[in-house]
Amino acid sequence: MIRTAVLLAAGMGTRLGTLGARRPKGFLEVGGAAIVARSLGRLFAHGIDRVVIGTGHLHAHYDALAERLPFVTCVRNERFATTGSMATLAVAGDAVGGDFLLLESDILYDELALHVLLNDPRPNVVLLSGVTDGGDEVWVEADAAGTIHAVSKRRADLASVSGEWVGISKLSLATYRAICAAHADGDYEHAIVAAAATYAIRVRTVEDLAWGEIDDEAQLRRARDVVWPRIVARESARAIRRDVLLTPGPATTTDSVKRAQLVPDLCPREAEFGAVLREVADGCTALVADSRTHAAVLLGGSGTAAVEAMLASAVGDGPLLVVDNGAYGARMAAIADGCGIPCAVFRSDATTALDLAALESALRGGHDGRPFTHLAVVHHETTTGLLNDVAAIGARCRTHGVALLVDGISSYAAIPLDLAAANVTCLAASANKNLQGMAGIALVIGSRALFAGLRPPRGRSFYLNLGEQYRFFEAEGQMRFTPPVQTVMALRQALLEIRLEGVAARYARYGACWATLLDGLAALGLETLVPRALQSRLVTAIREPDQAGYGFAALHDHCRQRGYTIYPGKLADRRSFRVATIGAITPDDIRGFVAALGDYLRAAAMGRKEY
Amino acid sequence: MIRTAVLLAAGMGTRLGTLGARRPKGFLEVGGAAIVARSLGRLFAHGIDRVVIGTGHLHAHYDALAERLPFVTCVRNERFATTGSMATLAVAGDAVGGDFLLLESDILYDELALHVLLNDPRPNVVLLSGVTDGGDEVWVEADAAGTIHAVSKRRADLASVSGEWVGISKLSLATYRAICAAHADGDYEHAIVAAAATYAIRVRTVEDLAWGEIDDEAQLRRARDVVWPRIVARESARAIRRDVLLTPGPATTTDSVKRAQLVPDLCPREAEFGAVLREVADGCTALVADSRTHAAVLLGGSGTAAVEAMLASAVGDGPLLVVDNGAYGARMAAIADGCGIPCAVFRSDATTALDLAALESALRGGHDGRPFTHLAVVHHETTTGLLNDVAAIGARCRTHGVALLVDGISSYAAIPLDLAAANVTCLAASANKNLQGMAGIALVIGSRALFAGLRPPRGRSFYLNLGEQYRFFEAEGQMRFTPPVQTVMALRQALLEIRLEGVAARYARYGACWATLLDGLAALGLETLVPRALQSRLVTAIREPDQAGYGFAALHDHCRQRGYTIYPGKLADRRSFRVATIGAITPDDIRGFVAALGDYLRAAAMGRKEY
Repeated sequence: MIRTAVLLAAGMGTRLGTLGARRPKGFLEVGGAAIVARSLGRLFAHGIDRVVIGTGHLHAHYDALAERLPFVTCVRNERFATTGSMATLAVAGDAVGGDFLLLESDILYDELALHVLLNDPRPNVVLLSGVTDGGDEVWVEADAAGTIHAVSKRRADLASVSGEWVGISKLSLATYRAICAAHADGDYEHAIVAAAATYAIRVRTVEDLAWGEIDDEAQLRRARDVVWPRIVARESARAIRRDVLLTPGPATTTDSVKRAQLVPDLCPREAEFGAVLREVADGCTALVADSRTHAAVLLGGSGTAAVEAMLASAVGDGPLLVVDNGAYGARMAAIADGCGIPCAVFRSDATTALDLAALESALRGGHDGRPFTHLAVVHHETTTGLLNDVAAIGARCRTHGVALLVDGISSYAAIPLDLAAANVTCLAASANKNLQGMAGIALVIGSRALFAGLRPPRGRSFYLNLGEQYRFFEAEGQMRFTPPVQTVMALRQALLEIRLEGVAARYARYGACWATLLDGLAALGLETLVPRALQSRLVTAIREPDQAGYGFAALHDHCRQRGYTIYPGKLADRRSFRVATIGAITPDDIRGFVAALGDYLRAAAMGRKEY
Repeated sequence: MIRTAVLLAAGMGTRLGTLGARRPKGFLEVGGAAIVARSLGRLFAHGIDRVVIGTGHLHAHYDALAERLPFVTCVRNERFATTGSMATLAVAGDAVGGDFLLLESDILYDELALHVLLNDPRPNVVLLSGVTDGGDEVWVEADAAGTIHAVSKRRADLASVSGEWVGISKLSLATYRAICAAHADGDYEHAIVAAAATYAIRVRTVEDLAWGEIDDEAQLRRARDVVWPRIVARESARAIRRDVLLTPGPATTTDSVKRAQLVPDLCPREAEFGAVLREVADGCTALVADSRTHAAVLLGGSGTAAVEAMLASAVGDGPLLVVDNGAYGARMAAIADGCGIPCAVFRSDATTALDLAALESALRGGHDGRPFTHLAVVHHETTTGLLNDVAAIGARCRTHGVALLVDGISSYAAIPLDLAAANVTCLAASANKNLQGMAGIALVIGSRALFAGLRPPRGRSFYLNLGEQYRFFEAEGQMRFTPPVQTVMALRQALLEIRLEGVAARYARYGACWATLLDGLAALGLETLVPRALQSRLVTAIREPDQAGYGFAALHDHCRQRGYTIYPGKLADRRSFRVATIGAITPDDIRGFVAALGDYLRAAAMGRKEY
């Protein structure tokens, strides 16, 4: 799997005159963004999470970019003014340490280019296009086997032409090293051609690829007027219809997470996949703990599978105290009861804050004459959007020597949490909520020492055994049972995207969506069930209006037709509906939803028949 | 979700002269296949499983096609010679009963056309392309909102041109009915334009779509010389790299199953998804039983989750007799033991046939003075590729009044089985083996009466409770817990594809791959562990050669580099490796693998260093 890219960005852009003197070519803007920013975005969307930029001319621009972005490093070719692109490749490539995509920084391209190279089974491939008439073309000649043979800016120099050099290639580390050994300077194109005499470096022609290089002002005009509209048209034709889920998860996902499922068939027992699993598990852990001391144990299944695995594996003979202030607290009690775990329930109202003193008193009281060994609580109850104060509960658990198990399924990856600081022993989570991955992966995060020693009593689930699962993975580098391969690949991409955004920034974005929602609700005269200060900002339970003509089913269908999916309430005694503000959404989506909601309420009030 | 298409295929093809008189235009061949066959294949690949063809001229060709294909129906426009395409649409559309794609039968197109329409959020869309110079163009004028306004074969008739009419559209049922009410005859294009004055019928232009209509010989030449190569180039640029898994599952999948995961985000609690779940469950059931009397209970998880769910839910206090002649039999015993089910094990050699008389004697003997209530056996042990005779075991279970539970994970959807006839009470299976779907869905198939009454003893898994899962789904039309939405969509496509192929034909294809493998092994002097007559034809355990220089890891890596993934052995006492002949593969793939295997063995024998 290719996950690394090198960008050649040292060039002086002399043919761009003052434009090239002011900023590096990669910072020219087309379609409202610097072309290098767009290129990086497309690389990240294709699973690339390590980019080395070889800089030189006006390198500070790139250094500032690398400062902002987690996966980008700059390596400077100090002699950029007197050397060619090969010297830049040689300094940048050494920082890579694996097969990589190699891109010029001054090109604008349809992302299909990346797809084609990443899916080409051959290790060394130079991408060509048909004739672009873009000006300043580099023509390429390849032999019958597709091995690159010659390049020239003068077409007449070549016996035949296979296409134009695009400036995107794929190289194995071995081939890269051979190229470096033979060439210290000059154009990297000629170095690649020379290496092709010894190494199998093939061409791949995408006849009508939409792309353009920007070396001069005419090419810049072409990029803006011809190439960019064509790229937009091509990429939008391949887009997946966007429906906005305002449900508590699965949440709206990016197209890149969806597309990450489209991998070549891969046996999950391969070492390559084991490495992905380890990366994913460590990435999941790192959101809430140190992955050296803690681990995420992955299981194929829903969030409930994670909760059962946590309770059934971590709690021995108990007794367990379960906090129930919503449907998911009640479910934990049911799971514990089903597993035969001695268990007491601490009930609290679903819309008001937990009484921590009362909880502590219950904790102190024990159960059937035995002290509690574990306390289980839901961090964020999607029943109402109520947030429980896990850190405060953790402090009390510490006082009483009780292990804290948290259902963090709907808070994880949005609400910042440090397991060690909050004294959380285990956190159950899933891939498909704030992580913005696909459903099908359950996970439990806890300390490695805990998992290494877990041996649940006989009678608990064989499949959902966290101890066995952890030890097998540590020993074999594989999951105990067949994992959902494609869902894991989507989770890998989702983790890449949350690293790009950051948990705090994600929560801030969700919070901005929530604030937009609350403003909209207030303007429509609608009320929330939970006081604002206790709200998670992730899910909001809204009191149903008493208005004649209102019906949830009709509201739901009205919104769904407009692309917004909402959720019914879950409390028996208070009529509500719920809107989640999680997933790959923005406040604009919420404004669109609020408008649809307002339309519905007005139409329903007027008794319009279609509602 | 659009799952229906109408093909307009009544036309007389008069401009094709004798070519048009011999066969309908849809049966013209381009790229080695009739264009209508290609069109149907692409529709099926996009999840369409109901196609109504409106026939007329030389209808017998289409009738014969419909006879061969499971999802195709023909409806004849008896007056085809004197009416226009609208009359054909009116007879065909009435057989549809839902929103549909509408296609002309005489066009060749890049499948991107289907993707664009299926992902367009608007209900009524007419696909346009940019200028093709294909000859005989139908020009389309649309207003600023994209509503279709006028069509004409004379460009000068139109005030402006939005593009060329391709002949692929999407219509809601309501709009279709309105069109039919207003127009009984004439060209359907004009009927659609007229309806657009009242209904929102929009255009969608894909500027450089590769497509062509075939109305005359010049267009046929263009289709063959220009359009077809362009379609091949475009579709192959978008293809996913093909790696061949010769592992016992997950198996090699088709690109269409992979792509079925790329759906717009969909909340699994929506009725629309519930309908998909029901369809998928019924489709899974129908492969081995009558879906009126039997049901498939789906769970998010691996095959082992299915086996635990089956044992933990169906067996009460037992005792259970488990047949162990391989790793998966042993695993069932471990699961039963873990669940606390009283259990005896009938051990048998992993490479020879079960002694049915001895098994019957064990069955008769009972356990700890109690008669067995259940017997559990693995249908196909992938440990060695040994097939157990489920029907014969079922007959003995019937005699002794014992319920038979079968781990059919690796046989299901390949080896024909009728649960009722074989006296199988429950069959555990998964989506990712012979079904050629993605990993992440476990299923157990049994009678509805059984599931309706299942109430496992306290202490068994909450998550893997088949009775609760079945009853919840029947009552609510949803899964109890969040299902893996995208994996379910892939399974839907996989079921569509097995209906197209048929279980018996799939097993025959796997058998042909297996026979090719055995011929290749014999030529290389390699032996199988299990006698030929007992082999499943799905997985073959091959004795490792004693040859100096041989090592499985090196063989594996050698094959993997060439695109073939194989599996190590699983028997402690006999050194073997395993090759599965399941998935979206053909005997040609096996020939390629055998060649790679031969290369390795020769090189290893010569002591070549790279091996």
